[in-house]
Amino acid sequence: MSATFDGSGFCVWFTGLSGAGKSTIAEMLFHELRARGMRTEILDGDVVRQNLSKGLGFSKEDRDTNILRIGFVAELLTRNGVATICCPISPYRETRDAVRTQIQKSGAFIDVFVHAPVQEIADHRDPKGLYKKAIAGEIKNFTGVDDPYEPPLEPELMLDTMVESPEESLQRLLDTLHRLGHIDDPTPLVAGPKQHSGFTDLRLTGSGHVAEGR
Amino acid sequence: MSATFDGSGFCVWFTGLSGAGKSTIAEMLFHELRARGMRTEILDGDVVRQNLSKGLGFSKEDRDTNILRIGFVAELLTRNGVATICCPISPYRETRDAVRTQIQKSGAFIDVFVHAPVQEIADHRDPKGLYKKAIAGEIKNFTGVDDPYEPPLEPELMLDTMVESPEESLQRLLDTLHRLGHIDDPTPLVAGPKQHSGFTDLRLTGSGHVAEGR
Repeated sequence: MSATFDGSGFCVWFTGLSGAGKSTIAEMLFHELRARGMRTEILDGDVVRQNLSKGLGFSKEDRDTNILRIGFVAELLTRNGVATICCPISPYRETRDAVRTQIQKSGAFIDVFVHAPVQEIADHRDPKGLYKKAIAGEIKNFTGVDDPYEPPLEPELMLDTMVESPEESLQRLLDTLHRLGHIDDPTPLVAGPKQHSGFTDLRLTGSGHVAEGR
Repeated sequence: MSATFDGSGFCVWFTGLSGAGKSTIAEMLFHELRARGMRTEILDGDVVRQNLSKGLGFSKEDRDTNILRIGFVAELLTRNGVATICCPISPYRETRDAVRTQIQKSGAFIDVFVHAPVQEIADHRDPKGLYKKAIAGEIKNFTGVDDPYEPPLEPELMLDTMVESPEESLQRLLDTLHRLGHIDDPTPLVAGPKQHSGFTDLRLTGSGHVAEGR
């Protein structure tokens, strides 16, 4: 089944700091859409960096190039009826807006801002100690520490993972997709452990997460 | 309508020298598949270099990286039911085989070798004089002149554009896709002038073709 009732696709674009919870919610959404028989794909920061952007660094120019590549592929998928989930940090507002404009030629763009404060992530969600190293100046160009993050001004949805559980965030996201006409039933269909999609950095416990984390 | 009757996609991969006729046949195929109501996309060398591989050069490593990126995107499309047409030079056999293996996880891979001899192209199909410059040593790393081209050993189809007209090549390709079960009628549906897809370097009369031509 193609995404959306008229056969056009849509793109759910998660943006936010590393560790804010983008991949967690993206994975849950992926399974919900699959459970509805929809064609769906996840384009995550690290998997894309591995396959499309190897060699790019973390300068503004390189980050933008990476995001525009994700946008190019997301548009190809969206216009072919795929529900495309993207979850790169995508720190720059102007670049996200360029991607939005591109994808809206082919389908809907749903910008989801996944928020958590740096200190919360550093204190409680930083198993590899990357934020601590960045705060100590041992890692440079780390988004939210010494590299900018520009939150969306008018996201379709903001998820505050400080006060919401992942299940609550997912429900608000499903409600939004229902309200926008992309799914016919916002009731979660999937419960319990799920097979990992293999397309987010939740899988990449090695260098992958380090790269995306910056 | 998804490509192929069971909803899975397929990938038609044109390989051959610059000027051999890949983009011409690819465009004709694109319109035939569209006319059948199928979802179809073209990933051409230059358009992909522009959007996914800017900054890559023409070393073996960079060429391989470019081809693997096209393969990554082609697999995403193929497994979502899109009839995906790729027409990069893709000079290295091992790299094409890696892409074939990857895409066959998701759908069929149809390797089409588009053949024309270097001398024929240089004499009659080289409006920008690129082959002449390469033969004179003024352009380096030019496939078929001072850079290798490894023809496929067992392509699904070989098109000899020295002896066939584009219409004859298209017919043989449609016959092949029919025989393999990807289309139900091999009769050409489209005649006369067609709107250009915008996704092959036939459009790019500037630096684009120069880049892909090497």
